[in-house]
Order: sequence, then C-alpha cells, then structure tokens
Amino acid sequence: MTSVEIPCVNGARLWESLMETAHFGGLPGGGISRLALSDSDKAVRDWFKRACEELGCEVFVDQVGNMFAVWNPTRSQLRPIAVGSHLDTQPTGGKFDGVLGVLAGLEVLRTLVDSGTIPKHPIVLVNWTNEEGARFEPAMLGSGAYAGVFDRDSVHETADKEGRTLRSALEDIGYRGTLALGAIRFAAMFELHIEQGPILEAESKDIGVVVGVQGMRWYDVVVRGQEAHAGSTPLGYRRDALAAATSMIERVATIAAERKGLSTVGMIQALPGSRNVVPGTVRFSIDLRHHVDDVLDLMEQSILRLVERQRSGGYDVELKRIWDSPPVTFNDRCVAAIRQAAAGLSSMEIVSGAGHDSVHVARVAPTAMIFIPCKDGLSHNEAESATPRHCANGAQVLLSAVMHYDAQ
Amino acid sequence: MTSVEIPCVNGARLWESLMETAHFGGLPGGGISRLALSDSDKAVRDWFKRACEELGCEVFVDQVGNMFAVWNPTRSQLRPIAVGSHLDTQPTGGKFDGVLGVLAGLEVLRTLVDSGTIPKHPIVLVNWTNEEGARFEPAMLGSGAYAGVFDRDSVHETADKEGRTLRSALEDIGYRGTLALGAIRFAAMFELHIEQGPILEAESKDIGVVVGVQGMRWYDVVVRGQEAHAGSTPLGYRRDALAAATSMIERVATIAAERKGLSTVGMIQALPGSRNVVPGTVRFSIDLRHHVDDVLDLMEQSILRLVERQRSGGYDVELKRIWDSPPVTFNDRCVAAIRQAAAGLSSMEIVSGAGHDSVHVARVAPTAMIFIPCKDGLSHNEAESATPRHCANGAQVLLSAVMHYDAQ
Repeated sequence: MTSVEIPCVNGARLWESLMETAHFGGLPGGGISRLALSDSDKAVRDWFKRACEELGCEVFVDQVGNMFAVWNPTRSQLRPIAVGSHLDTQPTGGKFDGVLGVLAGLEVLRTLVDSGTIPKHPIVLVNWTNEEGARFEPAMLGSGAYAGVFDRDSVHETADKEGRTLRSALEDIGYRGTLALGAIRFAAMFELHIEQGPILEAESKDIGVVVGVQGMRWYDVVVRGQEAHAGSTPLGYRRDALAAATSMIERVATIAAERKGLSTVGMIQALPGSRNVVPGTVRFSIDLRHHVDDVLDLMEQSILRLVERQRSGGYDVELKRIWDSPPVTFNDRCVAAIRQAAAGLSSMEIVSGAGHDSVHVARVAPTAMIFIPCKDGLSHNEAESATPRHCANGAQVLLSAVMHYDAQ
Repeated sequence: MTSVEIPCVNGARLWESLMETAHFGGLPGGGISRLALSDSDKAVRDWFKRACEELGCEVFVDQVGNMFAVWNPTRSQLRPIAVGSHLDTQPTGGKFDGVLGVLAGLEVLRTLVDSGTIPKHPIVLVNWTNEEGARFEPAMLGSGAYAGVFDRDSVHETADKEGRTLRSALEDIGYRGTLALGAIRFAAMFELHIEQGPILEAESKDIGVVVGVQGMRWYDVVVRGQEAHAGSTPLGYRRDALAAATSMIERVATIAAERKGLSTVGMIQALPGSRNVVPGTVRFSIDLRHHVDDVLDLMEQSILRLVERQRSGGYDVELKRIWDSPPVTFNDRCVAAIRQAAAGLSSMEIVSGAGHDSVHVARVAPTAMIFIPCKDGLSHNEAESATPRHCANGAQVLLSAVMHYDAQ
C-alpha cells in the first residue's frame, strides 16, 4: 500500500452539476426523461463536452457515440485510467442513475485540475451510449460495442420502436464519431453508481465496494392445460393452467431461496382471461440471479425437473431460456483500490444485482464499481433520490481509488 | 302418476332445423356468430316466427324482444306450459348452446301437431333476448326483464361496446314489440340445454335431470406490495405482490375444494408487468360456486380470513364482491315430470354450474331444465358438439315432461 496525497472533491459543485444537467429532459416530478440520442441527450452531451474541454480535455467520439474525454497534461504514454458511466435515462428516470458516475468523474477531473494534482496515468472520463436500453435494445449497447460484445454494424442497424436506426439517430444529433471501437484502451476503469437496491441504506453504510455482478438468466414459460367452463367443470375434470403455474411459481421461489439466489416472476398472463373460464394457457417469465454461474446451473436444473413433474402431471409445459448474462467478478486490484479509498467511511462488500456498463468493460480492462445508497432502493423512477453527502462521498472514493490505483 | 299417450319426436327433422338455422351467422369453422339483435339474429328470428306461424301459433314479441309463439288450438283459458331457450350465440359460439332448446321446442310443437295430440294447457315456445351477454351486459337480460329482475327502461338503455342501445338495436331489426313484460304467465317452463360440462359424457348418461343451478359469487382482488428491482432487492427486503397472490390463489382453491364447491381464478394481472421488476400490484378475479347459499357464505368467510392474514403479513389487500347470483332449486313437480320423462333412458340428477334463462324464470313460474351431453364438455366454442341421438333424446324428454306435467 502506497501513501498518496489526495485532494478533496467539492461536494457542492458536484451537486450543482447534477441539478444543472437535470434540466436536460427534466420532468415536472423531479425526474429526467432523456432517452439515448434524443434532443435532450444531445443537449447534455454538448454540455458535457464543453465542461471537459474547459478542463483541457480532448473529447473523442467513437463510431457508436461513446464519448471519451481524455485528460493527459503530461502527455504520458501510459494507458489512461477510466471513470464514468452514462448520461441517458429511462423514460421516467431519476437524476442519479448513470448521471452520478459521469458527473462525479467530471468532479474528479475538476478537483485534480484545481489542486494541481497530476497522476502518472492520463484520466479518461467516459459517457457510454444507450446504457438503459429504453430506446434501443439491448441495454449497455455502447459499452458492449466498445468491448467487442456487439459488432458495429449490427449496433448501427438496431432500431427504436419507431424504426429509426441507432446510426441515423447518431447522425441526427451529430454524435456519430470516427474513433474505432475499443481504440482507447484503459489501464483500469472505475464506475460510481447508486446501488438501485435497499442494502446499503438498511445497513447504514456509506459505500458499497462492488466485488462483482450477479449472473442473470431469463426464461419464458408457457403452461398449457384445458380451457373449461368455471361453473360446469368439476375440479376433478380440470386441467387448470393457472393452478399449475402458481404451484410452479411457488416452487421456483423456493429453489432460488435454497441456493441463496434471487428469482422474480414479473410477468404473468392467463388465457383466455375471462373470469368464468378456467385458464387453458398461462405464460409467465422467470428472472434468475446468482453471483456464481455453477449455482445458476443448479437452479436451472431444479427448474427443469419441476417442468418434467408438471408434464407428467398432464400439463404441456415449455421453458425457454431467452437471455443469459454470466456473473462477473471484478478485478482484485481495482477492488483493493476502492477498499483502500473507502477506509475513512463505513463500507461493505456488495454484489451488484443490476447490470452495468462495467460488466462489458470488465472483459477488456481491470474494472470495479463503487455504490452509494439511494433512498428506499428506488431507481428507474422519478422518486429516485441520493443525498448530497452520499454523492460527495462517492466522488471522493472514486477520486481516491483512481489515485491509489495510479500509485500502485 | 298418470299414464299419457306420448308421440315420438322426429330426430332427423330436429337435426335438419339445427343445421339449417346454423347458416344464420354461420362461421367457416362450423360454429355460429350470432350476437343478440344483429342482422343474423334478425334472420333466425324471422325464420323462427315463420316456422311457428306455419304450425298455427300466434307469435307475440314483448318490449325487450322476447318472442312467445303461443299454440292454443282449443282456446284454453289455462296458463300455457312454456318450452324454449335462446337463439343468440357467443361471437364464436357453437350450434347447440341455446339453439337446441328453442328448436327442440319447435320439434315438440311439430310432433304434437303432426300426431294430433292436444294437451290440456296451451304451449308457448319462447326465444329469450340476449341470453349470452356477449353484446349487451349482463347475460340473461331478456328473461330477467320478463321476470322483473331488470326494469324495462334500464334494459332499453343498456348499450353495446359501440354505444348502440338495446332499444335502438331492437328497432333496427323490427323486434321492439308491444307486449308488456311478464304479460304471458306460464303454468310451468321446461328448458332443454347442452350440459356445457363433462359430467354426463364421463358418466355415460343420456339425460341430466337438472335439480337446480349453483349459486355464483364474483370477486375482484387487488394485492399491493412494493415494486422493486429484480436484481438488487434481496428476498428479505421484498414485498412481492405476486408471491402473496399465488399463495392466496392456492388457498382459495383449497377452501372451495374442502366445501365441495368450485373456485376459478380466470384473470390475473401483475403490475408493472416487467420481467425484471418485482410486481408491486397484482389483480385477480375469483369465481366461487356452490348449490347451497350458506356454504357460499362459509367459503366467503374463509376467504375474508385469508385476506386478513395477508394484511397482517404486510400486504394491502382489497376484496370486492362484484356479483352475487344465489343458488336456484328447481320446482319439484317439474323435476318429477322430467324424471318420469327420462325413465327409458340412462339419466342422473345434476346441478347446473352455468347460469340459464331458467334461473330468472324460476322466480315467477315452476321451472326445471333438461341437459344432454356435449362433446368434451366444450361450449362457447366453434367445436361445441352434440350428437343427433342425444339431441333427439333431449327433445323427446322435453315433450314427455310437458305431457306428464300437463297430465298432473
């Protein structure tokens, strides 16, 4: 462990930036509607570019609109240490999800400039395109393209609900850049984010040292029994698809709990959907999460056995895995730098339940994340809220982690 | 018990009538789409009126379009014995539901005329308006208006989904009659119907002697927990409205089974309905049936206790009873006449699970019903099917029951 002189961030200035940029796409209820590559996204990108250039950064835009503000006062040949996140939001998003990570990165740069602190590595502040996936699917598209998970042409052809392609949306707002994907390689990346969950708040911790991201598997389930008249069909003659589905849903919850994982059934539909007809078909979704891939395998096997049992009980059951995002373990040295940076605060190790750009970046560079608490764990919601103190703490830990990593 | 000479119905002629009228609103898949007071309903009404008049009936139409074909060759002053059902269908209905009861009634009249058999009572063949409730709500509107359950003006103002009132629909097809509601009072009424359930087929019975109709209560349930992120919300922090709802649904099924009643959850909706969001609100319906009102009370009390348990578990639960149709016990003498009429066939007593016009008629006249088997218990479906033999059996039992009742 090395000892480095670390200046203090200006929490009030960070808060001002958060409130100022919240006007781009600002909603009456206090939230933000700033879909990727919309006019308000252009406005906040222009603001961001100007703010970085004022600090002496050179701002590059790659072929999918990812923005890289490179601060390299010593013209170092080392790879830069990256900070940042995303400036796009959900249609009725909050003021912190993503935005905090970018503006805290800006605050890191401002603090370094103001204090005359020059790290060995250049610093690059990143704004990833379309993290939310609310306009273009899937989520984390820009960071995925950067990391080689998605190829450029298919990302360009991705269309929103109105059929507008990402490429033409980039061109419309002047953010189809020329920098090749992945051209700026990072020494490491640190992303600050609100937790989007209730744990830090409930545990009264200032900082979550994020050691990894849960793996996630999505399934579609269809259960088919026999549609029947609710009045004239005795119980013994029924093959009630909803009865079969509810018993499966309860069992899936138990399977996940036994493995200390998470399962969620967020969507359910009973057909024909009439109050006096025994449902013949039920469709539901399963979202399964765990931070160990082998455990996800075990949970999936248990669910497959459950499907078999329902089949032998006379139901036609289809289970389709439609999405698989393996768990991510963050880089030890990055995590150690964050732990060291958080030494003066109350902190705990945490596994992220949500996906983040860092999941993709971790494939190509040492990466880790910092969480701060958010009120009631709420996110993707206008009521999303974090205190000025927690935001300042997060920015300070981000700066300190960069400096500790830089000094290693 | 009296001995009467009873002529035999012509099963082939009945079948021809069923197939001929199936063209009015006929669908390519073999079913019928004949919504109440539509053009195809007008066509079948015109056909029906002509067929009855050819037999010497006088056809009256009341103020809500119910049709009464009165056959009274001896100008008897006795109240008529009624037979009949309804000619309207579901949007994709079958060829038998309702139609069989009317056309078997026609076959009864034809058989009496052909054989020169003159009962003591006049016979009235009835076609009730809008039994299905598929165009105008609620179901069984015409018979309910006849029996004084609904008043004339509110029935007239009832509108379909396009805002067309029942009165203007009656006027459009020329079936807004002048006969006062309830003006033709019945000595008794017999309604033949397909079972719309699987019991007779499974038990290999030709005839169901319907002794009553189950009571039915409909409820809307809303369960509110807390919407939460599927990845970042540990199980212990969740108030998953779907988890609460599925456990309630399972318990409701047990409550009904323990009382030998029926429960059906036909509709369920989880909100916000996103696969990676723990549902904050779930709405579902409960359809509860039993042939004894006190037992329905007991089941309802058990469900209310279940609601209380969920509330004390931290969920906000609303349970609203939105419909209550008490059980009906059919008239002993009518049931006895049917039992006597079915003597030469295999038969069983049965309680109707579905509602029928006879439920309303039973309030104002001695009433009972006759069921015949239908294939796989299917109804409200183009695949609805009954055999010519079973239809002929049903018509024969209908005629015999009328004659036995007439002779009492």
